[in-house]
Amino acid sequence: MGLIVQKFGGSSVADAAHVMNVARIVTDTYKEGNDVVVVVSAQGNTTDDLITKALEINPKATKREMDMLLSAGEQISIALLSMAIDSLGYPAISLLGWQAGFETNSKYGSARIKSIRTDRLLLELGKKNIVIVAGFQGLCKYDDITTLGRGGSDTSAVAIAAALRADRCQIFTDVEGVYTADPHKVKGVKKLSEITYDEMLELATLGAQVLNNRSVEMAKKYNVELEVLSSLNPVSGTIVKEVAKMEKMLVRGVTKDTNVARISIIGVPDVPGIAFKIFSKLAAKRINVDIILQSVGRDNTKDISFTVSRDNGPKAVELLENFNLLDGKKIVCDRDVAKISVVGAGMETHPGTASKMFEALFSVDVNIQMISTSEIKISVLISASDAERAVNAVHRAFIPEE
Amino acid sequence: MGLIVQKFGGSSVADAAHVMNVARIVTDTYKEGNDVVVVVSAQGNTTDDLITKALEINPKATKREMDMLLSAGEQISIALLSMAIDSLGYPAISLLGWQAGFETNSKYGSARIKSIRTDRLLLELGKKNIVIVAGFQGLCKYDDITTLGRGGSDTSAVAIAAALRADRCQIFTDVEGVYTADPHKVKGVKKLSEITYDEMLELATLGAQVLNNRSVEMAKKYNVELEVLSSLNPVSGTIVKEVAKMEKMLVRGVTKDTNVARISIIGVPDVPGIAFKIFSKLAAKRINVDIILQSVGRDNTKDISFTVSRDNGPKAVELLENFNLLDGKKIVCDRDVAKISVVGAGMETHPGTASKMFEALFSVDVNIQMISTSEIKISVLISASDAERAVNAVHRAFIPEE
Repeated sequence: MGLIVQKFGGSSVADAAHVMNVARIVTDTYKEGNDVVVVVSAQGNTTDDLITKALEINPKATKREMDMLLSAGEQISIALLSMAIDSLGYPAISLLGWQAGFETNSKYGSARIKSIRTDRLLLELGKKNIVIVAGFQGLCKYDDITTLGRGGSDTSAVAIAAALRADRCQIFTDVEGVYTADPHKVKGVKKLSEITYDEMLELATLGAQVLNNRSVEMAKKYNVELEVLSSLNPVSGTIVKEVAKMEKMLVRGVTKDTNVARISIIGVPDVPGIAFKIFSKLAAKRINVDIILQSVGRDNTKDISFTVSRDNGPKAVELLENFNLLDGKKIVCDRDVAKISVVGAGMETHPGTASKMFEALFSVDVNIQMISTSEIKISVLISASDAERAVNAVHRAFIPEE
Repeated sequence: MGLIVQKFGGSSVADAAHVMNVARIVTDTYKEGNDVVVVVSAQGNTTDDLITKALEINPKATKREMDMLLSAGEQISIALLSMAIDSLGYPAISLLGWQAGFETNSKYGSARIKSIRTDRLLLELGKKNIVIVAGFQGLCKYDDITTLGRGGSDTSAVAIAAALRADRCQIFTDVEGVYTADPHKVKGVKKLSEITYDEMLELATLGAQVLNNRSVEMAKKYNVELEVLSSLNPVSGTIVKEVAKMEKMLVRGVTKDTNVARISIIGVPDVPGIAFKIFSKLAAKRINVDIILQSVGRDNTKDISFTVSRDNGPKAVELLENFNLLDGKKIVCDRDVAKISVVGAGMETHPGTASKMFEALFSVDVNIQMISTSEIKISVLISASDAERAVNAVHRAFIPEE
């Protein structure tokens, strides 16, 4: 008995059979006496198909027109889901982003939600309608359609849940929840019943691509209780909330991220401000730097190493090679690396997590290139060929076998 | 140098090559110094594909949700056309029906335009943008998307032309204009350079499916000068306006309509009000009656014959057979008939048109079953097997060979 927001991604509504499956999940929730708002993405490959059409005509199409084009995808899926629910005998109405009150800034292609005018949503809920909302889209002050960028439908769902003070926001995916590591790669993984927003954020950033980061940040900000669960097997999933049960686990998850490159600059002059100049140069080109390591070199020089995302590697090298301050310095880019991380709010108060992780890596003969730590995370950079062995060893060390 | 509204149907924007072709026609018009508003339908089979998707899920989908679904089709085509124009180096912006100010009643699936708020259109034209508008769609007072029904994009184009007092509204089709008869069926046809609204209405009603009737009616009401021309060969087409040049032709066109059935009731009692009762019965079931013939019968009875559209034939017969006033009367339905018509505003002031037509039919041995006339039209009902011979003979009689 409450207000539930449910979000289904494109693969969950890919065809008629999937749409009917979603309709059954939604009406099961409605039958239990809940008010239900459903946020849907475009069907399966619709977005890609539309992008292909655009590229054929104009590879440099403006973002404003791309948003006009792509937002048609969700329009199709909300209408179909509403028809499916109607065919099961329940009242439903579909609403486009602007009809559902999504007001965004006018940054086409990656707009930010400014507010949600909830009058239409409340009107339809008042009529006992199941309300189907097009995710990923809104309207800017010029009365133009905008899209929210990658993972936008998750954000749409959390924003509605926040605006309506929903009791829960359920994100349906193709996995049954958040696991202690990638179930496809690591043995003995466990599904977490609960996790905190901060842990989820670290896991998302580190490559456990279950939830979009922006949506988790928004959920944290507005204290929206999230649940991650599977649309194919909708048993209870993982709850994301402010304070999670500890489940006697120090570490909530172990992740592997191979979308990373390590760049080293050898023999940088050891003068004040040199690091600042290097990293502000990268920042100006919007190259995000993750782990940074500075080592004492010889002859009044030092070596600086840092990681960037894999595709930014060559761009960063080119930038630094043309930087007069580094004239003649050797710049090395290694894209054959992986970042292994352990995440858990518990480690803040439990010393020894790092040494336990390093021990596990040593036990399987994995060399550590770089280390980075935060309150709830320890990351190490290792050779990509060691990654799978490493993540399994670390997982074994921290997650108790049943 | 003026304001031109151009409308392109679904086949004109079916794929990338066709979209580029339309973009070139539009920019050619713009280059001549005109302001241009373009109305587009959904690409090729998009609407049919969307209907198929809906039928798979819910064959009884509400019209409200069908409108939500189908209006995505035009959204895709306006964005693509805008991108195509941009790629040619000209400024363009796409607008959905509601963005272009289309306010309709809330009869989903076949909504009527109530008004067009032109502020956004004028704003974009003021910026020297080529404005691409989604045809076929509008917004009702509930802030829901509506569609205008069959031929809706023609109506959208004429409505914009009327609202903006455009100098001309060009309807691009797959024919080069309005012909004196169907070029595929009749020899020696001519393209008309001009035609009046009333003549066009008669021709459209009679099956020369070039322009949607509602759009011609609206053009007449608001005195919008229409031009029908081909998107594949955009030479000058046929102008539709209030007073057309006579071109020394008494008859503007000859049409054949085979979507017709003749129903005869034999031996109806010759009492007052019987015809009224029969036809009001049919009207109550929304069966439109076209030509009516009443003949004197024997023994105080008469025979009543009339035509309806072909698919309404069986329905009309069933209705009359269950009508107690006609108990025991013989009711015959002949679906093997065709209606041949000549249309021309000139015949009002030229006697002898009918006899000339009958002579032409007699010359090729065609028997006339029924006759109907109006100020600018003469129609005859004949056997379907005579239709092609008849239309050629009548065309020869009225349209001078070059």
